[in-house]
Amino acid sequence: MPRPDEFSLISRLFAPLAANHAGALGLKDDCALFPGPDGEDWAVTADAMVAGVHFLPDDPPELIARKLLRVNLSDLAAMGASPRFVLMTCAFPKGVDDGWLDRYAAGLKTDCAEFSIALIGGDTVSTPGPLTLSLTALGAVPRQSALLRSNARSGHQIWVSGTIGDGAFGLLAAQGRQGLEPEHHSFLDDRYHLPQPRIGLGPALRGIAGACMDISDGLVADLGHICRASGVGAEIEAAALPLSAATRAAIAAGWGWGIETALAGGDDYELLFTAAPEMAERIVQIGQHLSLNLTPIGRIIGGSGVRVLGENGHELSLARGGYNHFDPGPAR
Amino acid sequence: MPRPDEFSLISRLFAPLAANHAGALGLKDDCALFPGPDGEDWAVTADAMVAGVHFLPDDPPELIARKLLRVNLSDLAAMGASPRFVLMTCAFPKGVDDGWLDRYAAGLKTDCAEFSIALIGGDTVSTPGPLTLSLTALGAVPRQSALLRSNARSGHQIWVSGTIGDGAFGLLAAQGRQGLEPEHHSFLDDRYHLPQPRIGLGPALRGIAGACMDISDGLVADLGHICRASGVGAEIEAAALPLSAATRAAIAAGWGWGIETALAGGDDYELLFTAAPEMAERIVQIGQHLSLNLTPIGRIIGGSGVRVLGENGHELSLARGGYNHFDPGPAR
Repeated sequence: MPRPDEFSLISRLFAPLAANHAGALGLKDDCALFPGPDGEDWAVTADAMVAGVHFLPDDPPELIARKLLRVNLSDLAAMGASPRFVLMTCAFPKGVDDGWLDRYAAGLKTDCAEFSIALIGGDTVSTPGPLTLSLTALGAVPRQSALLRSNARSGHQIWVSGTIGDGAFGLLAAQGRQGLEPEHHSFLDDRYHLPQPRIGLGPALRGIAGACMDISDGLVADLGHICRASGVGAEIEAAALPLSAATRAAIAAGWGWGIETALAGGDDYELLFTAAPEMAERIVQIGQHLSLNLTPIGRIIGGSGVRVLGENGHELSLARGGYNHFDPGPAR
Repeated sequence: MPRPDEFSLISRLFAPLAANHAGALGLKDDCALFPGPDGEDWAVTADAMVAGVHFLPDDPPELIARKLLRVNLSDLAAMGASPRFVLMTCAFPKGVDDGWLDRYAAGLKTDCAEFSIALIGGDTVSTPGPLTLSLTALGAVPRQSALLRSNARSGHQIWVSGTIGDGAFGLLAAQGRQGLEPEHHSFLDDRYHLPQPRIGLGPALRGIAGACMDISDGLVADLGHICRASGVGAEIEAAALPLSAATRAAIAAGWGWGIETALAGGDDYELLFTAAPEMAERIVQIGQHLSLNLTPIGRIIGGSGVRVLGENGHELSLARGGYNHFDPGPAR
């Protein structure tokens, strides 16, 4: 189902069922919140992934498991929460063999250790359809300090972590697009298959950032979510976008729609956040401490909507506002 | 995937990932536990359902939604927890229409109100395969008082709530089996499509029951789980089984495998619990208070395994220990 349909479906049918719990945040944020012990809240999120829709059916099983985990941990990071537990439901096709399952579990094990989390529940069923996975992740955050999408204020700077666009160009690499140096190709492929949830950064931004979310639908679309949630507009400068050497090479090689693929492509799982200008120095320090690039790319303004400014200061007209899975650009 | 494979899969591949959180209970109980506020724990459970495997593809959408919710609430009840929140992921086939979705959401709404719970998160994606649903339910239970499968002790009485076998005979009714009075037919159909999670009973049994779980795989198989978790054996009397008038009529009409379908059939979602004999009077009072039949059906003994005694006191030999979805008995 295209993403716009998903949003209208959720707001029309499901959001009313969230109305009697304020911590559900109207189903509009990366996680919901509910009370934990000792002055903490629990943040909880759930994502589903379907073979052929959210990952390639012949992707390595270790990487499918790790990506399932990581996209959910990225939602926790976006709220400033530290991951603790996951539950997983798996609908396995009947043909799945032990070797595949062993590798899938090995991938889960690697990342449960990497992120110090425990698998505490779930369900395993069979399906006549494609492999369908769902994961619920729980993280802890001090009460009243979760980072919400609704806290962007006019005058805030807009920041992103890491580099933008690698996820979309990485999908092209994973699909077999040719023409890059091997190290660029494998860097992009790796960025697509194995996102890096910013679980160090999210908690470090508590008390510093205004709004925060992770970039899964694409920078422009996700910034639009922050603007709507906060009742503000945003302006970003295309030239300020932090691009990896590999993404620069992919743009130069004519992959996708150039910079527009970086602006609109999904699957980056970097954090997008806003902060008052006086926080800039502390943000730079956090980036240095984490050895993670943090880059200001624009500003929150009054009004509504997201404008992208080109090199000449004029607004770029983007043909594609959001991200369609498996369609990050023309095949060649 | 047949259930025995599911258990070996979970214990071999996934249980090791639960080892560092005691509240995960080795992935062997109805829910996992983690800390909540004010002396409470959170109980959490997740179940998946696939069209054509766990429900009939043309089942009414309201009832699919409500059953998804109720089977999870039944797991909370089995731990003595009171339901609070759910998260739901839905993989919808592309052809699903607005009318179907509206009815599905209406069913959810009915039961969120019925059970005073909020939907606080989830995900909606598309699938080229069958409708695939996953729900995570969270409930609250006072710390140290959750009802575990591992607390059955030799000498305990074994109790069940409600009536047993209606789920399995109800599936036959839903599949169009004929030959019963209309009121029996519709009673069984209703029991299959709309289980009654015993959310009043579970919390009332805290401090009174030993082991507790809900009957989803079938009475004998599920009692076997309690026996293994507690390191005990069990003996039940077939004649003591509480059967509804409709199930008695179905047995008399030659549906399924008679009493064996009641003993081994799944989808009852009644509570199966053990308690010291001196608790019997209080248990009867709880049943009266809840207007819910609670019936002693046997006793926990030393050793291992489940024996079913027939009218003459001899052990019945059951051809079928567990439950296969959509195979509760011969078609005629």
